[in-house]
Amino acid sequence: MQRDPLREGRLGSERPEDVAAYLSSMAADRWIAGADIQVDVAHLMMLTRQEIIDPGLAKAIMEVLLEIHDGGLPATVYDDRYEDIHAGIEAYLIDRVGIDIGGRLHMGRSRNDEVATCIRVRLREELIACMGELLELREVLVTTAGQHTGTIMPGFTHLQHAQPTTLAHHLLSYEAAFGRDFDRMRDSIARINLCPLGAAAFASTGYPIDREYTASLLGFDGLAENTMDAVSGRDFVLEAISDCAMLMTAASRLCEEIVFWSSAFVAFIRLSDAYCSTSSIMPQKKNPDVAEIMRGKTGTVAGALSAGITLVKGLPMSYNRDLQELTPHLWSAVAATRSSVALLSGLLGAAAFNTDRMAEEADRGFATATELADVLVRDFGLPFRTAHGIVGRAVRKGRLDLATLEGAAGEIAGLSLVDLGVTDGVVSAALDAAYGIRVRRAPGGPAPEATERAIRERQRVLEADLIWVRTRTDRLEKALSDMIADARELIQ
Amino acid sequence: MQRDPLREGRLGSERPEDVAAYLSSMAADRWIAGADIQVDVAHLMMLTRQEIIDPGLAKAIMEVLLEIHDGGLPATVYDDRYEDIHAGIEAYLIDRVGIDIGGRLHMGRSRNDEVATCIRVRLREELIACMGELLELREVLVTTAGQHTGTIMPGFTHLQHAQPTTLAHHLLSYEAAFGRDFDRMRDSIARINLCPLGAAAFASTGYPIDREYTASLLGFDGLAENTMDAVSGRDFVLEAISDCAMLMTAASRLCEEIVFWSSAFVAFIRLSDAYCSTSSIMPQKKNPDVAEIMRGKTGTVAGALSAGITLVKGLPMSYNRDLQELTPHLWSAVAATRSSVALLSGLLGAAAFNTDRMAEEADRGFATATELADVLVRDFGLPFRTAHGIVGRAVRKGRLDLATLEGAAGEIAGLSLVDLGVTDGVVSAALDAAYGIRVRRAPGGPAPEATERAIRERQRVLEADLIWVRTRTDRLEKALSDMIADARELIQ
Amino acid sequence: MQRDPLREGRLGSERPEDVAAYLSSMAADRWIAGADIQVDVAHLMMLTRQEIIDPGLAKAIMEVLLEIHDGGLPATVYDDRYEDIHAGIEAYLIDRVGIDIGGRLHMGRSRNDEVATCIRVRLREELIACMGELLELREVLVTTAGQHTGTIMPGFTHLQHAQPTTLAHHLLSYEAAFGRDFDRMRDSIARINLCPLGAAAFASTGYPIDREYTASLLGFDGLAENTMDAVSGRDFVLEAISDCAMLMTAASRLCEEIVFWSSAFVAFIRLSDAYCSTSSIMPQKKNPDVAEIMRGKTGTVAGALSAGITLVKGLPMSYNRDLQELTPHLWSAVAATRSSVALLSGLLGAAAFNTDRMAEEADRGFATATELADVLVRDFGLPFRTAHGIVGRAVRKGRLDLATLEGAAGEIAGLSLVDLGVTDGVVSAALDAAYGIRVRRAPGGPAPEATERAIRERQRVLEADLIWVRTRTDRLEKALSDMIADARELIQ
Amino acid sequence: MQRDPLREGRLGSERPEDVAAYLSSMAADRWIAGADIQVDVAHLMMLTRQEIIDPGLAKAIMEVLLEIHDGGLPATVYDDRYEDIHAGIEAYLIDRVGIDIGGRLHMGRSRNDEVATCIRVRLREELIACMGELLELREVLVTTAGQHTGTIMPGFTHLQHAQPTTLAHHLLSYEAAFGRDFDRMRDSIARINLCPLGAAAFASTGYPIDREYTASLLGFDGLAENTMDAVSGRDFVLEAISDCAMLMTAASRLCEEIVFWSSAFVAFIRLSDAYCSTSSIMPQKKNPDVAEIMRGKTGTVAGALSAGITLVKGLPMSYNRDLQELTPHLWSAVAATRSSVALLSGLLGAAAFNTDRMAEEADRGFATATELADVLVRDFGLPFRTAHGIVGRAVRKGRLDLATLEGAAGEIAGLSLVDLGVTDGVVSAALDAAYGIRVRRAPGGPAPEATERAIRERQRVLEADLIWVRTRTDRLEKALSDMIADARELIQ
Repeated sequence: MQRDPLREGRLGSERPEDVAAYLSSMAADRWIAGADIQVDVAHLMMLTRQEIIDPGLAKAIMEVLLEIHDGGLPATVYDDRYEDIHAGIEAYLIDRVGIDIGGRLHMGRSRNDEVATCIRVRLREELIACMGELLELREVLVTTAGQHTGTIMPGFTHLQHAQPTTLAHHLLSYEAAFGRDFDRMRDSIARINLCPLGAAAFASTGYPIDREYTASLLGFDGLAENTMDAVSGRDFVLEAISDCAMLMTAASRLCEEIVFWSSAFVAFIRLSDAYCSTSSIMPQKKNPDVAEIMRGKTGTVAGALSAGITLVKGLPMSYNRDLQELTPHLWSAVAATRSSVALLSGLLGAAAFNTDRMAEEADRGFATATELADVLVRDFGLPFRTAHGIVGRAVRKGRLDLATLEGAAGEIAGLSLVDLGVTDGVVSAALDAAYGIRVRRAPGGPAPEATERAIRERQRVLEADLIWVRTRTDRLEKALSDMIADARELIQ
Repeated sequence: MQRDPLREGRLGSERPEDVAAYLSSMAADRWIAGADIQVDVAHLMMLTRQEIIDPGLAKAIMEVLLEIHDGGLPATVYDDRYEDIHAGIEAYLIDRVGIDIGGRLHMGRSRNDEVATCIRVRLREELIACMGELLELREVLVTTAGQHTGTIMPGFTHLQHAQPTTLAHHLLSYEAAFGRDFDRMRDSIARINLCPLGAAAFASTGYPIDREYTASLLGFDGLAENTMDAVSGRDFVLEAISDCAMLMTAASRLCEEIVFWSSAFVAFIRLSDAYCSTSSIMPQKKNPDVAEIMRGKTGTVAGALSAGITLVKGLPMSYNRDLQELTPHLWSAVAATRSSVALLSGLLGAAAFNTDRMAEEADRGFATATELADVLVRDFGLPFRTAHGIVGRAVRKGRLDLATLEGAAGEIAGLSLVDLGVTDGVVSAALDAAYGIRVRRAPGGPAPEATERAIRERQRVLEADLIWVRTRTDRLEKALSDMIADARELIQ
Repeated sequence: MQRDPLREGRLGSERPEDVAAYLSSMAADRWIAGADIQVDVAHLMMLTRQEIIDPGLAKAIMEVLLEIHDGGLPATVYDDRYEDIHAGIEAYLIDRVGIDIGGRLHMGRSRNDEVATCIRVRLREELIACMGELLELREVLVTTAGQHTGTIMPGFTHLQHAQPTTLAHHLLSYEAAFGRDFDRMRDSIARINLCPLGAAAFASTGYPIDREYTASLLGFDGLAENTMDAVSGRDFVLEAISDCAMLMTAASRLCEEIVFWSSAFVAFIRLSDAYCSTSSIMPQKKNPDVAEIMRGKTGTVAGALSAGITLVKGLPMSYNRDLQELTPHLWSAVAATRSSVALLSGLLGAAAFNTDRMAEEADRGFATATELADVLVRDFGLPFRTAHGIVGRAVRKGRLDLATLEGAAGEIAGLSLVDLGVTDGVVSAALDAAYGIRVRRAPGGPAPEATERAIRERQRVLEADLIWVRTRTDRLEKALSDMIADARELIQ
Repeated sequence: MQRDPLREGRLGSERPEDVAAYLSSMAADRWIAGADIQVDVAHLMMLTRQEIIDPGLAKAIMEVLLEIHDGGLPATVYDDRYEDIHAGIEAYLIDRVGIDIGGRLHMGRSRNDEVATCIRVRLREELIACMGELLELREVLVTTAGQHTGTIMPGFTHLQHAQPTTLAHHLLSYEAAFGRDFDRMRDSIARINLCPLGAAAFASTGYPIDREYTASLLGFDGLAENTMDAVSGRDFVLEAISDCAMLMTAASRLCEEIVFWSSAFVAFIRLSDAYCSTSSIMPQKKNPDVAEIMRGKTGTVAGALSAGITLVKGLPMSYNRDLQELTPHLWSAVAATRSSVALLSGLLGAAAFNTDRMAEEADRGFATATELADVLVRDFGLPFRTAHGIVGRAVRKGRLDLATLEGAAGEIAGLSLVDLGVTDGVVSAALDAAYGIRVRRAPGGPAPEATERAIRERQRVLEADLIWVRTRTDRLEKALSDMIADARELIQ
């Protein structure tokens, strides 16, 4: 390991190893090492164009940077006796070209703006990739829904059989939730993809830098303009973790259902062995482990959010070292979220739905009683609250046949359903699950015509979202390849 | 109290008082009581237009609803032996017009979609009002910044004197943060202002309802379409709390600085007595209590977010009663945030800045050393890292005069600054705080020309944001007044 | 409202109403109003005994304090234009006896030590009461377990049928968890029941006070000795909230099972109507609302803990006003926990277990396969991992009869079970759920002899715990009544 | 990598790599790998003694286990294609001695009880080590306090100069807090050091195991008795994280003060360079990074607690795979806490206190005004509230001399202090910081006689705590070495 170039001047004693380990962000910095080289290249291009650095010296530095960009970072830069990856790379650079040259790259910047830029570069990539994976998940949901617009199943409230619905309707409810998670990330990108570079320590710099140029080289949409805010603001990190936490909360609900549906009681779904484990002792077990771990990872991401807010709370301006401790929570949240989204697509795609069991349960537990009450209202003029009371009383008596209903009507409202014209046929038609679904054709409802309409609409949304992801991805890739091409010209 | 109309049919035993208190959401329902009447009016208008209810009966109900709308809710509806405000209002209605009429209002809906609609109606009002208050705070910050583009003060990193900056620069960093809080709320409104009504329990309804009509009456931008998602999705609540938590985290940082600046050590700010308290025992004390409580309320809002995520995690579809426990956290977070934003404007507006103390501290602690190093680089060709080392070593020796720098240069790099042409005059000019600020004129930097430009730009943003808030507010108010006018026609 | 006596001297302007409301802790202070009078009485007794106050003046003050103690606090003390209840009571006192007398009670103390003492007085009462309620819940669990040592039911892992167990075994697992919650609270009491009084603002006081005397009057076990720690330490609050959060987490698991067991799929439990609600739209519904809300309140208490830690983090010594914002979270957590514990006892006590359904499910899903594998090991000498493999393979083939097992044994291990002596009788005996339970008689296991032993042991623990609660309760009540008796003598 | 021995029987398809990585707990299992070998040895000793396994086979297995115990775990067991370390070790064992022998070790247990035991074995070690480190920190605080009983410094409330105190008093307040953290961990050990082994999957086992014997071999204080609770209860984990969170919250307060005291404004402390960093751009900077990161790590540990509660909430009995996701948070919290405690001792031990600056600030900001008010009460008979008002008004006028006080007395109470006998000498004596401290000799106060008494008392506590830690450590080490010795005899 090279001597840490930063400690030569101001500080005396060597740092004990436990202190060095405590202070080092190296473990988490692996996430931003690649971004750091891009940022170095951009900064050097700007120093050169603004004539802050001599072109010959710039060339010598750029050669090393491109070598690293092309061949990967040498292992020594990750030595955790460096405080961070920036020190590791600078030490390597100085080792290669000498301090008289390598010691000039850091002109007009500070690690404060450098690290903030690196985090944003990597985070936008991660979020956009996550959005791509989320799109796949949503497509799986919409596609599967499309196969099940006619698959009747019981809907639940309070985990009680409530009213019949369809599997399409149920799956589309998750697609709607994940669609909002997508939108939240897209909104966040607007606050993330802004460039802090040029803020230096927090007060910008006296060198004649060109912030817009660096920002554009790196594919940013604009500047994180106020330079004090640029280095010390981390709400973009908290917001990204919050996006992940919302998404995972939705995923945890689906996982809860997958676990529930996998139970022998319910048996609505059969998971692929690939997504399950057995027991070390109980040979018959096939456990929905992926869904359980995903439910557990919701806690992990929620904890990252809680950690982040606690950490940032009450920090004065501008940069404080506490912020270093924030970034690992970001990467942990992002990694947990991305892997969960991807596996959820796979798990659902490989699962088999037991539509017979669903049908069997659709009208259990008096789940069609609401429709019966509605029929009494719609076709026989009863006030809703009265019809609700009569049907409820009949359920309490244990049967929903005409005789029981007639008795309940007498008790509740002193009236006779038979006199009003209610017949056995009326009752049994109203209690048919398929009928109840067919009439629920309002927008967003379970009737096949409603879910088919919803699926068409959601496919349009998915297409637009896909274009957004592709456009964004392409634009960032092009910015990077253009910059590297320009940098290669510099060293010709 | 009227008998709870819901328990007549299905359930037998009376509910013990402790259970009733445990289940009742009445305390929090005060937040949505007004919204509930609006929702009732809209639903009744739709039932009438769709000919689901007889016009005569509708008129009788509407008379009571408008009476409540005009005169306020009668106290009895808040009896906490009702499960919720919806039951309280329905019981009152039935008491007034009889079950044969009043029992018909609930046709084609459920409390599940009703309460989700009420929460969204009230929440959008709260958030938009909060955004208005946030605008005022941002205006105070920009205006005060405008008075202090020339007020030099020390900037800090790690709470150490770091480099000189200006009060304008410092205040603008907070305006930038609060601006993003504004934007986050605006983005959230798009996901909040969608109408769940018509989702009924979760499966919509067999009545020929018109969801778009109700949504438009209530000023919604569209439907919360999938009806299962509409009643069980609460990510819009979590997102709103998260917005509040981000905002409060930013506020807590400003409060930390206000407390710090109020200390006798720093004395950068003098708060108005109105925002302070004294001690019950120490007669000399004047404490920055508002800032401290606000810092504390950050914990409250962060806790609300943590509570909310924990609560929603792992809930299966569709509605579960756990969700009732979520809403109080929303209102608590919104109330803490709104009161904090409003008070922060007042506190800052009434505070006096001690610019003499700021000037006095601007170059303390070698805060201008960075500029000196930069001058050695820019004007005398030293590599940055070498200049940084020389100046750091001189600081360690305790002085930044030419003699000490010369010694340090010899030790660090074996070179002579004097030989390079560095003079006493060069050193003292570089160490002048005002010089260091003047040259930091990159976008977002502290130089007066940079902050003045930033202020102009932010004023433009504030104007646009104000138009957004006004337009939104007007639109909602108009929707409501139009609906009430239509409702009055119904009862002519 | 009297003028706030604290603001006469130091502070100039009147406080605007919104600031007063923001600063006031009055809403939460209702929790400590009664404690405050006790603390006042104790402090005055001490001032008198130490001859810090003239006996005649003390008598005049004590008369008012006892009047309040006996008759309750006058409504005016709760006016929320006072910062807190302490100011409200002092203002009332001064109003009654004049400032020349009433203005002397605050000698040798500050609101900082006063409020810390009040919180501890109330909190110990609440926790001990909670422990009493927890004892009842544990008794319900142990008693119900005693009725069901022979009730076979399926045990689950991953929500999959795993192995048969008994209801006694299952319920005792919760009693064990709640027993630890009891122990945690008992441990916490040792850190809570210490007296801060005499710490004054944080530096104690120059008056010749007697801290041990006040502590003993108020029934404390000792002093919160270091006076700076006494007023600014709030880990006792965080610890109490943490105790509540652990308890609620355990309760949430039981509630999850109650909800699950109430579903039509499982039907292991039938709740009393008193603990359920119906739907406003679905007349057949009987929902386990109490269990759901309790699960939700887990989020509330977890949020209180998160709020508290966020709030206390990073506060410098000694008292900061942020701490005022902590106490409402304490009371909210305590109230949610106490009501939940009490209702859970009631709900379980009134529930009916469907033991037929439990028996029916006990051997479903190959739940007795583990025992079969164990029999192959124990009685036929197979290595465990081989037996596990054979049985697992047979399950995958769909049957656990001898023929299928024989085939699996050939595939997995190339051996013949029949050759080893395994017969149809061996297989069917091993697959009998009752057999599997009977042999699981290790301590803590499900065999009736093990659960009966456990029940006897837990009853002994419950008796000891009950004595602890009673002794503590009596001791505190005696301290209070002794103090009041002494105080009455003072005014004779 | 060996084939995973668990998947041979029940499950068909191979697991895709991303699923394997998602499910694997291998990264966190490094924490328990050593413990797992101990648990294997104990289990095998018991199987042998109970004659569940043939002695010859036991010997063959034990040879491999002891080889691993002595020489360390082979790298292959950590292959993350195994679900966990238990599978890795079992596969290695089977590879060494064949399935016919190695496949017998898992008799009478499950990974569920195995992993719960391993976590408890490692956790008790970690907590006891943490308590040892905490003792060192407390000793540094007490020792340093002993050197500073006469070091006068300002005490603060609301970060305002409040009253003089001493550095000893201030440091002892932290020792008191850390003492409670120690006690909480000691209390937790009683709930952690209980043995789950024998619980198997959750229903114990039909083998004639001896749970007490295994527990005693492994140095446990008793059994985690109920076997369902033993495998699914994780409140001991949450409690340990909570202990860490409380400790870190206290540490964060001290760190906040260290950062504040290091600022150029305050300059109360000079940190050793070893615990500081400089800036990459500002050569003069010496930043208190260790204290800042420690403050930040408070967020990390708080987040772990929040994650854990969220994760465990609502899990049904018994084991669910979600729990696997909990353990990494435990180790992360423990590691952050232990390293923080150790570094805090080092940092404080190496810091220099600037007692001149402290003295200089002791009476600044009218910090001795309380004592003056008290003197007016004690020696001149004024009611406290009146004296408080007079002194407060004089402070508002800007001076605490007799003339100003006389004027204030007239305004506030219409009286003359001069007439009462107050002189210039009285006023200046009362305003002397040393006087104010000398009279504050109540227990726990800042007077040297009080702090010296406190230091002696705390040293006694520290000695007792040290004995506790040593006894515990020795007992665990002896249990382990005895067990290994017995195991070696088995293979003779």
